[in-house]
Amino acid sequence: MIITVTLNAALDITYEVADLALWGSHRVSAVRQRAGGKGVNVASVLSTFGIAVTATGLVGGGTGAAIRADLDARGVRHAFGDCAGESRRTVNVVSTASGDATIFNEPGPVVTAGEWRSFTSWLDGLVRESGADVVVASGSLPPGAPVDAYAQIVELVRARNARCVVDADGEPLRRALAAGPDVVKPNLAELRAVTGVAAPLRGAAVLRRLGARDVVVSLGADGVLVVPADGPAYRAAAGQRLAGNPTGAGDAAVAAIAAGLARGHDWPRVMGEVVGWSAAAVLSRVAGEVRPVEAARLAAMVRIEETDDAGKA
Amino acid sequence: MIITVTLNAALDITYEVADLALWGSHRVSAVRQRAGGKGVNVASVLSTFGIAVTATGLVGGGTGAAIRADLDARGVRHAFGDCAGESRRTVNVVSTASGDATIFNEPGPVVTAGEWRSFTSWLDGLVRESGADVVVASGSLPPGAPVDAYAQIVELVRARNARCVVDADGEPLRRALAAGPDVVKPNLAELRAVTGVAAPLRGAAVLRRLGARDVVVSLGADGVLVVPADGPAYRAAAGQRLAGNPTGAGDAAVAAIAAGLARGHDWPRVMGEVVGWSAAAVLSRVAGEVRPVEAARLAAMVRIEETDDAGKA
Repeated sequence: MIITVTLNAALDITYEVADLALWGSHRVSAVRQRAGGKGVNVASVLSTFGIAVTATGLVGGGTGAAIRADLDARGVRHAFGDCAGESRRTVNVVSTASGDATIFNEPGPVVTAGEWRSFTSWLDGLVRESGADVVVASGSLPPGAPVDAYAQIVELVRARNARCVVDADGEPLRRALAAGPDVVKPNLAELRAVTGVAAPLRGAAVLRRLGARDVVVSLGADGVLVVPADGPAYRAAAGQRLAGNPTGAGDAAVAAIAAGLARGHDWPRVMGEVVGWSAAAVLSRVAGEVRPVEAARLAAMVRIEETDDAGKA
Repeated sequence: MIITVTLNAALDITYEVADLALWGSHRVSAVRQRAGGKGVNVASVLSTFGIAVTATGLVGGGTGAAIRADLDARGVRHAFGDCAGESRRTVNVVSTASGDATIFNEPGPVVTAGEWRSFTSWLDGLVRESGADVVVASGSLPPGAPVDAYAQIVELVRARNARCVVDADGEPLRRALAAGPDVVKPNLAELRAVTGVAAPLRGAAVLRRLGARDVVVSLGADGVLVVPADGPAYRAAAGQRLAGNPTGAGDAAVAAIAAGLARGHDWPRVMGEVVGWSAAAVLSRVAGEVRPVEAARLAAMVRIEETDDAGKA
């Protein structure tokens, strides 16, 4: 059983417009909406693969109700805690003329200290009662959440003998490292921002020294790198150049990591799935959607090689 | 008692962003939302003046629930019918740098024939049980609503011996005319589109020949013109040039017309209020809000004159 935590869950709204004009009035020709936020996206992918998962986090207001309703409609199990504030929306305006997108991100609800305490108790109960093996904590923090929110979650999860994957950045990631997460998954920009190091192997080594057990760095089109506590580092890359929409590729990668941890797969095997699932997300017509058959086909084509670049030290 | 009908009620969402960049990603610094749609706005204004009013129309889904919740919070009485589709949102992105706005309008729910029939029964019951004097039908039709929706409403209202004000345009307005509405209130562009006549007095006379009893034409900064069935035509204009936001001025004008009809005021007096309330909406800091003290002050300054331009014939 995997639990995903999304503290700033969202309702992702997509508007199609003929074209976008600054300061104009636009008739929206099509509206789509879908529960989102990184952890929710991870749960969606896992659910598509038939892997037992529950999405939790904090939601509130009418938008929170819409997030729950969408997950119900898609058959994604969820057990969110409540907050008094209104969950955030993201509005993604896509021009049907050019395909370009213009995005508006609401900040999200202000979480009070009491709501945060209630949520940590709620999460602790959920991990205990579900016997979860793996907890994934991903995405930005809502206003008001403590900056060490992910550190607290890592401690709570480890105290329940489950493993914790953190996909975050900046100070919340830095704080989480000290609590000893089992896996962190920065991309190159996030790695550089936290460590000050641009080279992925050396940067990953810094994250390990700061407390992470295994470090997976997503390298965009160049694939991924894993620097584990035990055994050699590996690089993995797709067997073909991919043209598509990278939205959701990172969440598909985190889903593959969580699935691999829960199933006890070794890193070379997990890395094949990380790249295959990400590649399937990139090639998908619907942003963030991953078709298992496509993911398996792409995973079989992944090139994996041990890497012991001097930069590792 | 006044009833306002809003068939395509909306949740009006305002986003503040530092500045708008085409194809960029924007952090929304402030979110405001408010129930809207023309009839809802008319009910809000009447409610601010302490005039008994009930907002009805069709709402559905989570956005429909948010529309009802906002009216509850603002103390505006409402009794909407339900539809299965999701009520529309409008997203108004305002740049804090320039004050300019970029607007996205969702199309609204597709109303089925069965939902439309249920609504007309619902409205008939509401008019009968409330003993309404005046029913206001304003704004665009949702997809699926019959093009003669306003004509049907006028007939229903007249059969209950109440008076009906229609603020619509295009074919729905043209159809409504044949049913004999007590007042229609086009602006100049709407008048020209329906009659093919650019001169307001002559255009209003055409609307009267097509079935409207009294015609009020809003002339923007030049005030308003009324061409009633009984008595002379009047023009009224604000006593000062107004700089501000014209959003909601038309709805404030319709609110003043409905209030005047309900109270049995004569046209010169109503015209003073039409211009005063509209002017208060233009000068308001919050779009569409009308402060009664300000509206009364401005109404007292309105210049009203009889007009018998040869064009009237």
